[in-house]
Amino acid sequence: MLFAPLYLKKNADRRLRIGHVWIYSNEVDTDRSPLNSFEIGQAITIYAHNNKILGNGYINPHSLICARLISRDPQYHLDQSLLLQRLNSALSLRQRLFAKPFYRLVYGESDGLPGLVVDRFGDIVVVQITTAGMERVREEVIAALTTTLHPQAIVLRNDTAVRTLEGLENYVAVVQGQLPAEVLIEENQAHFYVSVLEGQKTGWFYDHRYNRARLKHYAQQQRVLDVFSYSGAWSIPAALAGAHSVWCIDSSQQALELVKKNSELNQVTAKVHPLLGDAFEQLKELHRAGEKFDLIILDPPAFIKRKKDQLAGEQAYRRINQLAMQLLPTEGILISASCSLHLPSQTLLDLLRATSQQLDRGLQILEQGHQSPDHPIHPAIPETAYIKAFVCRVL
Amino acid sequence: MLFAPLYLKKNADRRLRIGHVWIYSNEVDTDRSPLNSFEIGQAITIYAHNNKILGNGYINPHSLICARLISRDPQYHLDQSLLLQRLNSALSLRQRLFAKPFYRLVYGESDGLPGLVVDRFGDIVVVQITTAGMERVREEVIAALTTTLHPQAIVLRNDTAVRTLEGLENYVAVVQGQLPAEVLIEENQAHFYVSVLEGQKTGWFYDHRYNRARLKHYAQQQRVLDVFSYSGAWSIPAALAGAHSVWCIDSSQQALELVKKNSELNQVTAKVHPLLGDAFEQLKELHRAGEKFDLIILDPPAFIKRKKDQLAGEQAYRRINQLAMQLLPTEGILISASCSLHLPSQTLLDLLRATSQQLDRGLQILEQGHQSPDHPIHPAIPETAYIKAFVCRVL
Repeated sequence: MLFAPLYLKKNADRRLRIGHVWIYSNEVDTDRSPLNSFEIGQAITIYAHNNKILGNGYINPHSLICARLISRDPQYHLDQSLLLQRLNSALSLRQRLFAKPFYRLVYGESDGLPGLVVDRFGDIVVVQITTAGMERVREEVIAALTTTLHPQAIVLRNDTAVRTLEGLENYVAVVQGQLPAEVLIEENQAHFYVSVLEGQKTGWFYDHRYNRARLKHYAQQQRVLDVFSYSGAWSIPAALAGAHSVWCIDSSQQALELVKKNSELNQVTAKVHPLLGDAFEQLKELHRAGEKFDLIILDPPAFIKRKKDQLAGEQAYRRINQLAMQLLPTEGILISASCSLHLPSQTLLDLLRATSQQLDRGLQILEQGHQSPDHPIHPAIPETAYIKAFVCRVL
Repeated sequence: MLFAPLYLKKNADRRLRIGHVWIYSNEVDTDRSPLNSFEIGQAITIYAHNNKILGNGYINPHSLICARLISRDPQYHLDQSLLLQRLNSALSLRQRLFAKPFYRLVYGESDGLPGLVVDRFGDIVVVQITTAGMERVREEVIAALTTTLHPQAIVLRNDTAVRTLEGLENYVAVVQGQLPAEVLIEENQAHFYVSVLEGQKTGWFYDHRYNRARLKHYAQQQRVLDVFSYSGAWSIPAALAGAHSVWCIDSSQQALELVKKNSELNQVTAKVHPLLGDAFEQLKELHRAGEKFDLIILDPPAFIKRKKDQLAGEQAYRRINQLAMQLLPTEGILISASCSLHLPSQTLLDLLRATSQQLDRGLQILEQGHQSPDHPIHPAIPETAYIKAFVCRVL
């Protein structure tokens, strides 16, 4: 099935040919296909400069990433049937990987559904739509999820900054069923309350699941410090793994209250201690007080959100890792993570090495962690890989 | 304590200053410290061009990597006391990580002991010495291992090609105690016979332990193909994880007999089937016969042993991965590993992407694995990182 034609400039099909699905606005041959001739989110057929069909997709003429390829085979386009087929493929992977229905069910481009994120919290499904093309099939998305999962409730967490760039309004809505008073999930045998309507992003970060699972090898009998603890996704499993005590730093009172609730839920209240305040300041304060921790977890928010934050962001990563290393005794363990797409793994490693050298400490990299497999990486789309975590021993 | 001085050329201290420990022969100021003035393996004190002491180490004037730094603090040098201290630090890490004494105890440079590898198979300790400097303290190494571990036997597997480059003779010897008729180890709850005197390297590869542990998430009910199976380190855990059947390809009859012995040991004989022959030929044959496997493991020997093998080696990785992908049904799983130092992770990923594209198959990277933490990576020595493994879903 063919749609309104979008012609690319000469050689602008290179990225698509190696498997990527994005088209930038400056790659469009606007003489042959003026951008202002398209509606926001409409279906298109993409043509190379030589008129060869590259596939079907959708367009947002106002966005920097102005079009995304949906199917290389022009037989298919983004309709109910394709949504169902890709959703089923995504579901079959997660069901193979996880015994219980707690996972990211759809991870955008990597699952062939650009602009769509779906997190599953048991019978509750939380959806985030980030492009105009996907917003246009919103009702079909909801229908496909209903058919496939029969969920108790579907929530749209369409309140993310990238929607503004796409010219979409921000809103949060329960679009189907009834949200229960409390939503509970299980991760690595720990249980958590998830704040579906008000939490960060969809309410929970499944991306570090496998990295958090490593805690059981390191936390036993240890005095643990969880910096940027948020709702306790690292603190609780550390406590359950037999940590001696776990100290949680967060600047949000609300986050620390979630930690408290989650500690009660997992019966580790006696071990888990909140520290309200700015992470940098708290670490300095602990250092001044001569405190030491055997295991420190650094899972900060993205310090490099945009390319322009690169230098300041790297500086922040350097600083926070330095502050943490100072609190470690000889042979202490540092789990240093980053969710910044723009911080390559090698840069984080270099920065850890340089920091340890400045402090005259030896450093061994024990493990390198990545995002969990419910956030698969598309090998031609480097933008789908963002999580990195190093487990380090500091001598 | 100061030793014979080795002077570096101007700026040749750069690598050492960022934390590396190797000095190449062309970095030595041979006017001030002629290489032929040194004995093979002797202790040295290393000086920068400006006469600043960089630390103590050892030298082999005939080797390309002609010197290795042992201690930046010239108080220390490679003697019994330093060996004991570093061995204890290495042991404390492994004891923290592993409940049972089956692990790589010393991993050369990463454990501060360049030229020394020690694998522990319960009460049996297998040592590999790869540099003249370490060979010189051979007796101290044996004494330190005896003091620390009281092993039943210490075996020297000094039969590796790198020794020839160092001008050292090759030999295998039981240097202490008595080797029992059979050496058994446990890895991820599976049991294996290890051929300590005749097996590859020290007889066992602990480096993929954590990657093999992933099998339990993927092998259940699956028809599994283990290419380059060697002694069954991947096959047996796949069978134990509930695989429907496991087919092992290896070109060595001896290896396949070890697979058989290990299958019996783990009571999975009925599931495990040997396929003797060249891996490439066997995969082609299986393809011609229309066979399919749900899960394929590719853990080949290093196809790129030296830089000069780069092109041919990459071609071999491409070919073997292509042959494997052809045997996978939609949604099949490929675990593609490489132990080639000279094959960067990104190159393997690119090659997997290109191969899947040639076959017109979709590809999702589910997990990225690395060497296990008993092979820690030294952040300033990229040569200490060599294992990579991608868990892929092929659509």
